[in-house]
Amino acid sequence: MASTLLSARDLSFMLHEWLDAEALTKRPHYADHSRETLDGALELAERVATDHFAPHNKTNDANEPRFDGERVHVIPEVKRALEVYAETGLNALGLPASVGGGQLPHVVVSACNAWFQAANLGTSAYPFLTLGNARLLLAHGSPEQVDTWVRPMAEGRFSGTMCLSEPQAGSSLADITTRAEEAGDGTYRIFGNKMWISGGDHELAENIVHLVLAKIPGGPPGVKGISLFVVPKYLVGPDGSLGERNDVVPAGLNHKMGYRGTVNALLNFGEGRHSPGGRPGAVGYLVGEPHQGLKYMFHMMNGARIGVGAGAAALGYTGYLKSLAYARERLQGRPLGAKDPARPQVPITEHTDVRRMLLAQKSYAEGALALVLYCSRLVDDTASAEDPQVRERASLLLDVLTPIAKSWPSQWCLEANSLAIQVHGGYGYTREYDVEQHYRDNRLNPVHEGTHGIQALDLLGRKAVQDGGRRLALLLETARATADRARALGGEEAACAEALSAALDRVAQTTAAAWAEGDPETALANATAYLEATGHVVVAWMWLEQLVAAHGREGRFYDGKRAAAAYFFRHELPRTGPQFDLVASGDRTVLDTPADIL
Amino acid sequence: MASTLLSARDLSFMLHEWLDAEALTKRPHYADHSRETLDGALELAERVATDHFAPHNKTNDANEPRFDGERVHVIPEVKRALEVYAETGLNALGLPASVGGGQLPHVVVSACNAWFQAANLGTSAYPFLTLGNARLLLAHGSPEQVDTWVRPMAEGRFSGTMCLSEPQAGSSLADITTRAEEAGDGTYRIFGNKMWISGGDHELAENIVHLVLAKIPGGPPGVKGISLFVVPKYLVGPDGSLGERNDVVPAGLNHKMGYRGTVNALLNFGEGRHSPGGRPGAVGYLVGEPHQGLKYMFHMMNGARIGVGAGAAALGYTGYLKSLAYARERLQGRPLGAKDPARPQVPITEHTDVRRMLLAQKSYAEGALALVLYCSRLVDDTASAEDPQVRERASLLLDVLTPIAKSWPSQWCLEANSLAIQVHGGYGYTREYDVEQHYRDNRLNPVHEGTHGIQALDLLGRKAVQDGGRRLALLLETARATADRARALGGEEAACAEALSAALDRVAQTTAAAWAEGDPETALANATAYLEATGHVVVAWMWLEQLVAAHGREGRFYDGKRAAAAYFFRHELPRTGPQFDLVASGDRTVLDTPADIL
Repeated sequence: MASTLLSARDLSFMLHEWLDAEALTKRPHYADHSRETLDGALELAERVATDHFAPHNKTNDANEPRFDGERVHVIPEVKRALEVYAETGLNALGLPASVGGGQLPHVVVSACNAWFQAANLGTSAYPFLTLGNARLLLAHGSPEQVDTWVRPMAEGRFSGTMCLSEPQAGSSLADITTRAEEAGDGTYRIFGNKMWISGGDHELAENIVHLVLAKIPGGPPGVKGISLFVVPKYLVGPDGSLGERNDVVPAGLNHKMGYRGTVNALLNFGEGRHSPGGRPGAVGYLVGEPHQGLKYMFHMMNGARIGVGAGAAALGYTGYLKSLAYARERLQGRPLGAKDPARPQVPITEHTDVRRMLLAQKSYAEGALALVLYCSRLVDDTASAEDPQVRERASLLLDVLTPIAKSWPSQWCLEANSLAIQVHGGYGYTREYDVEQHYRDNRLNPVHEGTHGIQALDLLGRKAVQDGGRRLALLLETARATADRARALGGEEAACAEALSAALDRVAQTTAAAWAEGDPETALANATAYLEATGHVVVAWMWLEQLVAAHGREGRFYDGKRAAAAYFFRHELPRTGPQFDLVASGDRTVLDTPADIL
Repeated sequence: MASTLLSARDLSFMLHEWLDAEALTKRPHYADHSRETLDGALELAERVATDHFAPHNKTNDANEPRFDGERVHVIPEVKRALEVYAETGLNALGLPASVGGGQLPHVVVSACNAWFQAANLGTSAYPFLTLGNARLLLAHGSPEQVDTWVRPMAEGRFSGTMCLSEPQAGSSLADITTRAEEAGDGTYRIFGNKMWISGGDHELAENIVHLVLAKIPGGPPGVKGISLFVVPKYLVGPDGSLGERNDVVPAGLNHKMGYRGTVNALLNFGEGRHSPGGRPGAVGYLVGEPHQGLKYMFHMMNGARIGVGAGAAALGYTGYLKSLAYARERLQGRPLGAKDPARPQVPITEHTDVRRMLLAQKSYAEGALALVLYCSRLVDDTASAEDPQVRERASLLLDVLTPIAKSWPSQWCLEANSLAIQVHGGYGYTREYDVEQHYRDNRLNPVHEGTHGIQALDLLGRKAVQDGGRRLALLLETARATADRARALGGEEAACAEALSAALDRVAQTTAAAWAEGDPETALANATAYLEATGHVVVAWMWLEQLVAAHGREGRFYDGKRAAAAYFFRHELPRTGPQFDLVASGDRTVLDTPADIL
């Protein structure tokens, strides 16, 4: 029976028939890999996710982590699952061989990860945060830091976090007050409070490696004075042995609507519970140069943003498959015009509106997955393409796509999960079925790692216009090339190509219109509408890419792709018209509404 | 400090400055009332909802009803709240004086109820179901049934339910199999299983009056063979005293994502646990004529559908007010172009995108509340207008508005609650704040009392076209009259009038285009898009009504109304264009997609 987590068939289509992941194995960086090793990793991921992660997804949700004032308790299934994950090497697939990793192409790692996100978002968050942490240190840490912290993470012994937010500084990182005082021995002592720390404390690993943003006193104000530190839960000796407890302690856990399987903690640094070496403060190790912390953190953050989109896509996908399976089994009512009650009831897939809800989910989930895999493929190009021009283009394209890859799946795969509930009727609203949890879990995604509104400012305020708008121009040019290929195929593909070309023109025109006066306040007054409309155009492009890849192929799988693409082009893309109109008109309704009349 | 449940100021505006509720007191039916008694009821409702319902809303959610195999346990706060509710006469405000009720205009009762829906949807569901049950029996029951069942409900001693669904018959009521066998003494014996029964069992009242759909063997097949029965939990003697336990027992409870405060049960009728008089089956009393049960039930159902819309609106409203209060207090970041980190942080209402989310919520919540109050005002006209033509027009208008009054608030006030979370950032996703519960509670509304898709078929397949389309024509004519009044005022009102007129034309054209071929399958292929677009047009009309009522009035309250109206007309109404295009084009994408390629 086919999995209801993800579709292995679709992943194979996206990786091999569309994105040509195998071509990456011809690059020196991935020379140890072949089609077989890539597929082997995917099969392993499906198996471990299915057997060790999916079974405790509900248990995780119903028994969230608990803090007894001293220790954080997590259900034992999580630790067992993470042990299997590490034993099979899955945790290090995306790390380089130099630290014992699998050095697998990023696009394949993302596809593997999607199995775990679909199976159990809560449990999989621990290793994914660890992976992001390790990658940051590989990029910006010293060789010694890599040895001390990254190797044990690659072995699955240490866990990693990112500590940015504080009670008074969430979206506004300029306002963090955690301070890092020089200890005189090359290390720092950290004092402050961090919140919303996923994986912030637990006993799932031997140690926890916190990456902490803090300010060194005397540095520049605002974001220019932020530095990055490694602050471990336990100090580590030169031989790698665990030493003293560091002065970082949980102050409490957040109790969330969803995503309950992942510990989310408030952490106090240097409050005096533990004082390594008898001196106050949590021991911290500076990463890279002082005052460059935010830049380094964005290395991890950009990956995390695409990871958020991937998680949203995976939840959308599994909700789709589960509601499809339900709809095929559930008998209810009769078709329009054949209401004779003596006739047997039909599967609800016979009702047009149920098929609408399934097609919509398919178009959102597969569109979102395509987008995040496309972005992951770009990550591979930035890292391993031999031609520096290809690397640069990939990097620019990734820059402009990141806010969309984060926000679009977060918005539309949440909507997919809502439709999955709706297909199930009352059953979908009960905790007996899975889809209500997916919906609750997915609701976090428009909030964390930069809110929806922050992504909008990032896209229209920065990525679309910086360096003379070359990133957006490159995006439009790349998508137009897809349209050209589709146009040459004729038929439905050509019709979609026309629609996409017109929409791409609107993106360009609307961007120019928004910035016509050059004033950021006016330009960004309707930034969210711009983000959402541009996101829809980008996903239409992803659907056209898939249509082209499926061209001339026969069978139900390809027919399904064509149906979902048709749905997206006819039912979804037209939604963007009024949004572009609004942005282009420079509408000031919101801008000019003072808060005191609300 | 102003309430964060609802706005008393806005209710006063809607009832008095717009809908002229006081005029109803001139009708003989409401002659005992005056502006003072109407306002007194509203103030009482606000006070009791605030003091006795709101405080245990979270407790209710965190401690859902529990079934021990014998009895259903509900937290004690619920019973205490319902006692106060009955002691103050709130439970009978909407019942006629003939049974001891307050005989208050329906529109005022709806406004009172909204306080309770905003304060605690779970607890308030019990008396609201009871009210609907009592009204059905008043309309269709015998005088004896009114005495036996309605009077104790009016006194707050008995509780009421509606029992429609069965495991194999949810949306498809033609397929119910619960049977009612004549007992030979004028009563019936009921056998069968019902599910999704809100308030299905508990000890909050002395007795529970179930209204049960069942089939009398030998009757016509399908919906034409459905009869309606009163099936009490305890039999009642001629003197009103409680007698034997009837054979209706809970088989289990549903555990829901939200709306957890309301018991939701599977009920078994006549399974043999109790056998009144030593004979098998649950004792049932036929209501009205045999085989007319579905028609009677729709008496309750239509009221319940508007009640669902009202509950959704109330949740949207309180989420709006809570996120507004949060946004005014929460300091974060600095305005665009003034990012100097040395300057203090500003309230997040200074960020344009936060104001967008607040304005959107305001436009959805106040638009939805306006719609359900408008419908409630029509209920008053159907019941008490002296001119039979006014009564008939009100009845026709109510018919066509009901699917919109149910579905539009369910869709958009859920979206409002999502925005309320978003305004709160990470805090909104935690159970420490209220808005995540509102979001979970509200997600039921597109499902129960006829799903979103069922409302779409009801609107485009029935209400818009039956009797030559006279209901829809009346709706359009009534809305055009509003546009005419607004046009005469000039300025922004006139501009909105133009936009509304154009949108009303599109409703008419699209309806005709959908039915051009006269074939239901084709006509209804995109019925949901039609419902959603028409809903948006209707709510735009409600906003224009409010604009006209606010015309020439000065002050922050009226400026707020104008800002929200402007937002709705500029940001929301244009969304309907592509939806009307889709329906009018007769798009067959979904219709022609076979289920097996999904």
